[in-house]
Amino acid sequence: MEQIDPTAVLLQITLIFAAAKVGGEIAVRLGGVALIGEIVAGAALGPHALGWIREDAIAVGLAELGVVVLLFSVGLEMDFGQLRDVGARGVLVGSVGIVLPFIAGAGLMFATGQQTITALFVGTALVATSVGITARVLQDVGLIGEQESVIILAAAVVDDVLGLLVLAVVTGMGQGGFDALRLGILVVETLVFVGLLLTMGRFVMRDHGHRVSYLRIPHGALSFALLVCLVSALLAGVIGLAAIVGAYLAGLLVAELSDELELKRDMEPIRALLVPFFFVLTGARFDLAAFIQPSALAIGIVLTILAILTKLVGCGLAMWGTTLRSAVRVGVGMVPRGEVGLVVASLGLAAGVIDGGLYGAVLMMVAVTTLAAPFLLPPAFAFRGGRT
Amino acid sequence: MEQIDPTAVLLQITLIFAAAKVGGEIAVRLGGVALIGEIVAGAALGPHALGWIREDAIAVGLAELGVVVLLFSVGLEMDFGQLRDVGARGVLVGSVGIVLPFIAGAGLMFATGQQTITALFVGTALVATSVGITARVLQDVGLIGEQESVIILAAAVVDDVLGLLVLAVVTGMGQGGFDALRLGILVVETLVFVGLLLTMGRFVMRDHGHRVSYLRIPHGALSFALLVCLVSALLAGVIGLAAIVGAYLAGLLVAELSDELELKRDMEPIRALLVPFFFVLTGARFDLAAFIQPSALAIGIVLTILAILTKLVGCGLAMWGTTLRSAVRVGVGMVPRGEVGLVVASLGLAAGVIDGGLYGAVLMMVAVTTLAAPFLLPPAFAFRGGRT
Repeated sequence: MEQIDPTAVLLQITLIFAAAKVGGEIAVRLGGVALIGEIVAGAALGPHALGWIREDAIAVGLAELGVVVLLFSVGLEMDFGQLRDVGARGVLVGSVGIVLPFIAGAGLMFATGQQTITALFVGTALVATSVGITARVLQDVGLIGEQESVIILAAAVVDDVLGLLVLAVVTGMGQGGFDALRLGILVVETLVFVGLLLTMGRFVMRDHGHRVSYLRIPHGALSFALLVCLVSALLAGVIGLAAIVGAYLAGLLVAELSDELELKRDMEPIRALLVPFFFVLTGARFDLAAFIQPSALAIGIVLTILAILTKLVGCGLAMWGTTLRSAVRVGVGMVPRGEVGLVVASLGLAAGVIDGGLYGAVLMMVAVTTLAAPFLLPPAFAFRGGRT
Repeated sequence: MEQIDPTAVLLQITLIFAAAKVGGEIAVRLGGVALIGEIVAGAALGPHALGWIREDAIAVGLAELGVVVLLFSVGLEMDFGQLRDVGARGVLVGSVGIVLPFIAGAGLMFATGQQTITALFVGTALVATSVGITARVLQDVGLIGEQESVIILAAAVVDDVLGLLVLAVVTGMGQGGFDALRLGILVVETLVFVGLLLTMGRFVMRDHGHRVSYLRIPHGALSFALLVCLVSALLAGVIGLAAIVGAYLAGLLVAELSDELELKRDMEPIRALLVPFFFVLTGARFDLAAFIQPSALAIGIVLTILAILTKLVGCGLAMWGTTLRSAVRVGVGMVPRGEVGLVVASLGLAAGVIDGGLYGAVLMMVAVTTLAAPFLLPPAFAFRGGRT
């Protein structure tokens, strides 16, 4: 019958959860935020260090569920009217935030004599903002309702989508030619998916959403909301987008349902249980040894500085016409890179177009921008500047 | 880096969750309870039927987490004072409810000319009440606070513990001799574990539990409670008990914490998300084909009747001195068998001491008693009888 030992599964779950909460508490007491503790605990207990936490199906599954739940609840807490007001700005910020880092990363590679395909991979690794990190920090410090937060999240989602399109092109080229037809299909699928959810899906939810109260199972409304979240995340994954993009859009839809259903309140305990799995696993993926080798160190430092400056300046400039304060908030909010950078570097390593040193350099860039975000975001939001 | 496809994982999670909620809603609308719909949906989509749901690591992991969360919240909702008042009765009910089914099951096998070891396995398969099924039904219909519910849950936990001890003996004999020393160690470990949790653990929680409010991570109290639950479930699993026994005891402990922490409220959405995974997977394990073979049918029907009568009469008699009403409630509440019966039958099948027909018969017994419980429990609790 069952070959999987439930006790072994429970051990893995308990270890990750305990690491997250103990690490989180220590980080908070040291003046940081819980997120940092979760990532550091993951790195310490992960396969590249102590080896207590394995990256197996149950860990990956709970991490995936965790980040889906996180982005869903971020969408749920967002004000759609506010998003509509600043949506165009978000698209602009997201797009500029793709172009500059890509050019800088690829340019650095050309300047150091690397091949074109290597340059394209490293450029791509710099592209995508980690919407998970930013969302979590803004939520934890209670800034998710700020107008700049709405812009950052919209931009981060746009940049996630664009980043995956760039990745599709670059990996296609890495495999000896890229398939324009497949890319075209992906673009159309993306537009249809996002468009349908934000128009038809939203109207259906607004006009017929009150029917969830007809559901007769216990916690019917919550169950319906979670099902919309899972299906939307799954669809996004199936068409080649990140699942979190689907989860975020589902959150926006479900936010149309009545406040009396207490969905936001209900998501809080679910988040407290599941979200840490994502961040512990993010930490567990860091191979500290990979970027303390001398060959990685110098290039890693330059790459990290470029990664920070290009998002900060690029996204800040895309806020032209607002205030310096808003530009700083948005620029800082877009800095953290995350799992997409790691995935690109790993794909490049596997394809043989990125060597161990460059892989370490990308890892360092991801680690530094991820770990710096919780320290930089609160002061950035406290900053008061004049009009640009 | 990561070989596990997150989209495939998400597909499996979404399928199980959707099956549970759709099945549950249909069952409720047909006049049943959600639980039945979840089990039937699991059987329909499981590997023995449509094959859409696989029994892989992520499904098993979420099911395990689901049943742990269920028993934890049952313990959390239980009144310790009430449990103390009826605890002795619970031990009596649990013990009698072990002996009679075992004798009946083994006796039937002897009567039909089976070997001793086969008789012992089938007897063991009849022993353990499914605390998960009973707890879920009582919780769903709002009867968890009744005195008889407290007795049933205490008895079901006692019977789970005793059942696992019997299983240890019988499987030892099936493997050609049983290890008295190992059994002795298991008994001592069990007594120490349960004893320490219910005495020292409880006092520590009562006297120092207010300190959880010093935790500085978001949702500190809930995180602490979940950690106690996971660690206790894991310890129970490690010493050879069922994880749910540890989870239930952890719930009793954590119930000592302040009501103001809203832990019960917080567990509800977590339960709505995770518990269905357990019941869908329970359903997915039913191989309907196995018990519609003629050789299984007759013996299966007799076994099922014996399984129902022995718990009903045995546990009812153990309520001697109370009311007939209480005896009926407790007797009915102890009827459902679950995963332990399936595990015993599978072990017997693997060891070659139970043939396909007998395996099907045990499966039928588990299926019927499980599916009947939600129909029988509410009327049993509505029943008003005189004094015995």
